[in-house]
Amino acid sequence: MTFANVGTLGAVPGKRDELLAHLTARNTALQQAGCLAYEVGVSDDEPDTVFVVELWESADAHQSSLALPEVQAVIAAARPILSGTYGGFRFHVVGSPLKD
Amino acid sequence: MTFANVGTLGAVPGKRDELLAHLTARNTALQQAGCLAYEVGVSDDEPDTVFVVELWESADAHQSSLALPEVQAVIAAARPILSGTYGGFRFHVVGSPLKD
Repeated sequence: MTFANVGTLGAVPGKRDELLAHLTARNTALQQAGCLAYEVGVSDDEPDTVFVVELWESADAHQSSLALPEVQAVIAAARPILSGTYGGFRFHVVGSPLKD
Repeated sequence: MTFANVGTLGAVPGKRDELLAHLTARNTALQQAGCLAYEVGVSDDEPDTVFVVELWESADAHQSSLALPEVQAVIAAARPILSGTYGGFRFHVVGSPLKD
């Protein structure tokens, strides 16, 4: 069952674009681990926040991906520029009006 | 620029699955209006909540879609079974680690 992980990551003031760069750097390990979509963005309303929508083949695929060296490297690079403010939610996809 | 609208909709207790049915019913007008993805789901942690991730070709495409008769029909059907509790956020997609 497709799993969605949707979140906000607060950046240290002035470091949002650096955080964006870490999160959008090409990472072929994600697809191999079952990542179906990983969209990263921004909003003028919250200038120190990075927004992420992730879709995964399963919750297990997402959980397992966190142990990958490539993902651990991104986490290590991002940690010093995270403010410690997080938001978001996780859910299991049941359907879509775009598909029968 | 791809626009993301991510949200939670509280359902009147006992009406979550009815709300799910309204939101996942096949709706060809959405794609024509510029909807790229529309994933609807649930979480055991919040049994009276429906979760939605939408991706659109632009914020304008999303805004315009709200006036479509097909979308107005879904809103009208859902309104009586919404609890009035909402969450979520909107952002502009900048990139993805899955793509160069």
